[in-house]
Amino acid sequence: MNKIMENILTRRSVRAFTDKKIDIDIVKELIKAGLYAPSGMGRQTWKFTAVLNQSKIKKLAFAIGKELKREGYDFYSPSVIIIPSNDKESKFGKEDNACALENIFLAAHSYGIGSVWINQLQNICDVPEIRDILTELEIPENHVVYGLAALGYAKDENLSDVEKIGIYNIIE
Amino acid sequence: MNKIMENILTRRSVRAFTDKKIDIDIVKELIKAGLYAPSGMGRQTWKFTAVLNQSKIKKLAFAIGKELKREGYDFYSPSVIIIPSNDKESKFGKEDNACALENIFLAAHSYGIGSVWINQLQNICDVPEIRDILTELEIPENHVVYGLAALGYAKDENLSDVEKIGIYNIIE
Repeated sequence: MNKIMENILTRRSVRAFTDKKIDIDIVKELIKAGLYAPSGMGRQTWKFTAVLNQSKIKKLAFAIGKELKREGYDFYSPSVIIIPSNDKESKFGKEDNACALENIFLAAHSYGIGSVWINQLQNICDVPEIRDILTELEIPENHVVYGLAALGYAKDENLSDVEKIGIYNIIE
Repeated sequence: MNKIMENILTRRSVRAFTDKKIDIDIVKELIKAGLYAPSGMGRQTWKFTAVLNQSKIKKLAFAIGKELKREGYDFYSPSVIIIPSNDKESKFGKEDNACALENIFLAAHSYGIGSVWINQLQNICDVPEIRDILTELEIPENHVVYGLAALGYAKDENLSDVEKIGIYNIIE
């Protein structure tokens, strides 16, 4: 098995992180991985916002938790979040950002960094308190966040294997 | 730069393929790459259908071309198509399948195989002539196809570099 396959097959979603910081040069590599995802018609109507500042991460998580009535909501306390956002009018925004997130997850795994898809923002970006925070993070007003990456070093490296129940069929 | 980053950064969408067949064992690896993508809440409500049969590929492309009034539509004449489908009712189907497709594209690139996202089926799966073909391919009636991978060996290996216009911001 080649290293690319091995990296794909050993990536797992990580939901508990240590306090260890992620080097900013690695964060830049992860953003670059996102930028090299395919985008519909090559339009790249996205923006990538990485937040390393813990109080800003907590502020966003708190506002989401308040809106969703989930006390203590904290994105699993990551070291960094990377938020791909996309023009609300883009027909391909959701797919483009999903491909970018998968690139970020795979790149992170290659650096020994764990990650998980955070799905909570998708329908609440325009709640005023949340939009204000997104604006503070310089995310454009006309952008939506379909998902974001919570990133950090895994607390427990023995991640359980998920049974692959997906079915497939090969037609020769 | 590690091999994972290198594979991510050198992948390009390929839109012209040679006639060279893709070994079925590699097709199985590509499906496996898709199966190991993350899925919302780990539900894996997807199915992966690989079609190597050229007349079946052409039949599907022809029906799509007829519906979209694009004469000669042929998915760029790939050797293989892999069709991830997903339960129409899944809240995460589009994102899940996009992550799976990105895994397939990256895995293909690692084997020297080119790929491109085909987006034409998304809104026309339930046109009767097209649904009949999907059913012949054993894609469940309650599934939608958000995108599929056209795969083959690239005709021209000198793929143009796409200028990366996506912007980013790092908040420390």
